[in-house]
Amino acid sequence: MASETAHANCLGWAARDPSGVLSPYEFNRRAVAPDDVSIKITHCGVCYADVVWTKNLHRDSKYPVVPGHEIVGIVKEVGPKVDRFKVGDHVGVGTYVNSCRDCEYCNEGMEVNCVKGSVFTFNGVDADGTVTKGGYSSSIVVHERYCYRIPDNLPSHLAAPLLCAGITVYSPMIRHNMNQPGKSLGVVGLGGLGHMAVKFGKAFGLKVTVFSTSISKKEEALSVLGADNFVISSDEQQMKALTGSLDFIVDTASGDHQFEPYLWLLKTFGAYVLVGFPSEVKFSPASLLLGMKTFSGSITGGTKVTQEMLEFCAANKVYPNVEVVPIEYANEAIERLIKRDVKYRFVIDIENSLK
Amino acid sequence: MASETAHANCLGWAARDPSGVLSPYEFNRRAVAPDDVSIKITHCGVCYADVVWTKNLHRDSKYPVVPGHEIVGIVKEVGPKVDRFKVGDHVGVGTYVNSCRDCEYCNEGMEVNCVKGSVFTFNGVDADGTVTKGGYSSSIVVHERYCYRIPDNLPSHLAAPLLCAGITVYSPMIRHNMNQPGKSLGVVGLGGLGHMAVKFGKAFGLKVTVFSTSISKKEEALSVLGADNFVISSDEQQMKALTGSLDFIVDTASGDHQFEPYLWLLKTFGAYVLVGFPSEVKFSPASLLLGMKTFSGSITGGTKVTQEMLEFCAANKVYPNVEVVPIEYANEAIERLIKRDVKYRFVIDIENSLK
Repeated sequence: MASETAHANCLGWAARDPSGVLSPYEFNRRAVAPDDVSIKITHCGVCYADVVWTKNLHRDSKYPVVPGHEIVGIVKEVGPKVDRFKVGDHVGVGTYVNSCRDCEYCNEGMEVNCVKGSVFTFNGVDADGTVTKGGYSSSIVVHERYCYRIPDNLPSHLAAPLLCAGITVYSPMIRHNMNQPGKSLGVVGLGGLGHMAVKFGKAFGLKVTVFSTSISKKEEALSVLGADNFVISSDEQQMKALTGSLDFIVDTASGDHQFEPYLWLLKTFGAYVLVGFPSEVKFSPASLLLGMKTFSGSITGGTKVTQEMLEFCAANKVYPNVEVVPIEYANEAIERLIKRDVKYRFVIDIENSLK
Repeated sequence: MASETAHANCLGWAARDPSGVLSPYEFNRRAVAPDDVSIKITHCGVCYADVVWTKNLHRDSKYPVVPGHEIVGIVKEVGPKVDRFKVGDHVGVGTYVNSCRDCEYCNEGMEVNCVKGSVFTFNGVDADGTVTKGGYSSSIVVHERYCYRIPDNLPSHLAAPLLCAGITVYSPMIRHNMNQPGKSLGVVGLGGLGHMAVKFGKAFGLKVTVFSTSISKKEEALSVLGADNFVISSDEQQMKALTGSLDFIVDTASGDHQFEPYLWLLKTFGAYVLVGFPSEVKFSPASLLLGMKTFSGSITGGTKVTQEMLEFCAANKVYPNVEVVPIEYANEAIERLIKRDVKYRFVIDIENSLK
């Protein structure tokens, strides 16, 4: 270990055990291969996935865990075969850094669905057997395929949360043709993902209804985020008034809740998409059969749709609302995220604080 | 009542109470309106819905209940505005006999999804307030819109089960583009609906796997129905071998069972369609999220797709396997259906037995 750290080329913050407490940790990024891009990281968003694996909530954490998969930075070196990027480019890395590159899904730019499984950006096992380490670090080396161009007019600190929170809601909305003006969107939960769903909804010209358990979010949902309607999900009368009125509901709530009250709000052939991760899904068949509705799951998106989303956000100024914090604040940010005390995404200013 | 029965123009068999026992019952069909077709019924299929409402399983039976919604017969009179049918035509009536005829779904030939609700063929309340009575009867009068042309080469006793069992599986298969040769279909449950799903699957050129709880169905599934594969759903090894291999699963099982073992068998973006009616739907989100799968519900189909199905079945000789019985056997047929003791659909020979 002494010799390893003596040559360490990367400084990160890592959790060492299920306490999840993050502290400085030096390690080595791999040498730049012919297809690789080496990136000096400037910003990294704080995602609930960071909580999950720093604290071993899924019981598969491989410590030390360097979290972070909403990464933005500047290219500092490229391999000889790299043709999409050059030194100085602003680039991003999202939730995965490798895949087979040979299956029907990889070939379609849908690498997150790789038949052999995509390699997660942190706590994943890469093709060479190493455990991947994420963006709470000074640099990262990735195959250019998993690197995104950050458009010039998209500020780096606002681009970072798009790479997980943004694409996770954008991808199913596009897949279900919810970029057609006039359609009606329901958003369950108003955190990092939910607030982006509202913003995409408004950018697509949809009528957006936010469902929340807390009246405290009403004012901001309507006046700051621009939602058209705000409903307290426990208010049966408000809910009933919306029966059969929504084309699509995106459920970003991370905790357990009932699904059936929402399913009744969908129109015939309406779709409910789950992007959160409750402990189970349960509803009566009638709520789905009557109206021939659809209940789907979705996780992030492929490289093709991710790049398209970045261009869309830059062109339409669809920016997340963020709270920029230094790396020293990472532990507090994680704790506040658990308490849902953030509007709406923490972004770590790696460039100016991790030294 | 005496005067009513004195003028009764229709003889049926009805259940009078939740015992569900059927016995002869005379009643009046309405006078033929300008858009109406009056049909002399020749055959009627026995569907599980007949069990549900004769025995008040959904607690909304309106006795006397004359069941039957897989109706085939011959036109004996048409109203002056009817232009699609003439006396002597072979026609069918399915699960609904009215709708608003003015909403977006009615206008698209998807009347089963009418925003005001379609009127079921029996135990429904029609626009004039009368309780509808089904096909265990000598005749029926319906608006021509809810009447289907039975192609010349489709025998009446084989056409009847298509009008509920057939369309219930055909409609979601078409909606999910499962009429593309080479795709893989799973069929859960091998009764009236399941055996039709197998037949449509083979007619579409699919690779069909039947899932059943009973090994006794294997031989027939493979050799008589032509399925490619038969799996005992409780056999974990057989199930695991199919992980990620199916494009589509149609679940025709009427009872409660686990969904999750089947969801893992779907490919990425695969779809699971429920057409049965279990007491609840429950699964882990991972089984849906990983692979971005879809879980949908579906009930019968609109007039457009129903007519298309009849033409397809006639052209491709896709016929149900039936056991033709006289009306006097109706009570025993219902009891045997409950015990799943039928291969695969009872059809009542109304023409030759109800007099």
